[in-house]
Amino acid sequence: MIDIKQYIIAILVANQFGVLTRVSGLFSRRGFNIDSLTVGETESPEFSRITVALRGDKASKEQIIKQLSKLHDVKEIKEMKPEETVVRELLLIKVKSDDSSRNKIIDAVSVFRSKIVDYTTDSVCIEITGESSKINAFIDLLKPFGIIEMCRTGVVVLQRGIDCLKN
Amino acid sequence: MIDIKQYIIAILVANQFGVLTRVSGLFSRRGFNIDSLTVGETESPEFSRITVALRGDKASKEQIIKQLSKLHDVKEIKEMKPEETVVRELLLIKVKSDDSSRNKIIDAVSVFRSKIVDYTTDSVCIEITGESSKINAFIDLLKPFGIIEMCRTGVVVLQRGIDCLKN
Repeated sequence: MIDIKQYIIAILVANQFGVLTRVSGLFSRRGFNIDSLTVGETESPEFSRITVALRGDKASKEQIIKQLSKLHDVKEIKEMKPEETVVRELLLIKVKSDDSSRNKIIDAVSVFRSKIVDYTTDSVCIEITGESSKINAFIDLLKPFGIIEMCRTGVVVLQRGIDCLKN
Repeated sequence: MIDIKQYIIAILVANQFGVLTRVSGLFSRRGFNIDSLTVGETESPEFSRITVALRGDKASKEQIIKQLSKLHDVKEIKEMKPEETVVRELLLIKVKSDDSSRNKIIDAVSVFRSKIVDYTTDSVCIEITGESSKINAFIDLLKPFGIIEMCRTGVVVLQRGIDCLKN
């Protein structure tokens, strides 16, 4: 039986044109189902950091790490284990709201320690951060009110303690 | 004189293998300098939402929007104007800390309404969200303590009010 799990991979890449295309091309050629991908600046202007959350079995995950490490632009690559890392994601979500539902939405925002960032007579826009499971629970809670639209960043991840990707 | 500015583009795409590669390939072929890119799930399992922050002049930005809208997987595409939108980004940052610097770091965390998410005798890991300019200011403030590593999600953006990308 093949055990399909979610894996999170952190990749330090040279800040060059086309590197994202080469990295994402490798995932799509191998038919990997990416849950999320983020790419952003790091502490050094020479490098960007790509974080990929993907689903697959262990053998395929090891294969993709091997293939990624062969790319010229890839400087470091590491599988990030949930128990050794801090994983966070940000969600902006806009829900319908009226006089009868507004207080319930405000209660949900308070319990989840999220934040209202825009507000009209018909809608509320909320910002929330946390692990993916918390974000998913918050989305489920808001569904009955009517989700107008939402936008997730995808996960970013840092290792706990003083170690870092370059070590 | 060519006026180089940052633009934010929101793209609703079909949730298919290779769509990220096709979109990012278009940017790299045209030599666009992407500041950040995020891709994540939306309120519908059929669609993902890509948010790209990029630098360029107005003519090139309009050209890339035209090219993107020709891609089969692209369902909607919109330039998001700062004055009409909520823009947010998340940063995880790990800095060196010791008995003499710890209180200064904790003060900075409090002023910026950020959050300590991991803590050792030698390091502190902090989570912060906000607009990119706030994130940049926070990074500058922490630089003197010694940044061990950091990971930014890149920006996500929603239109203010009840309108959404599909309208």
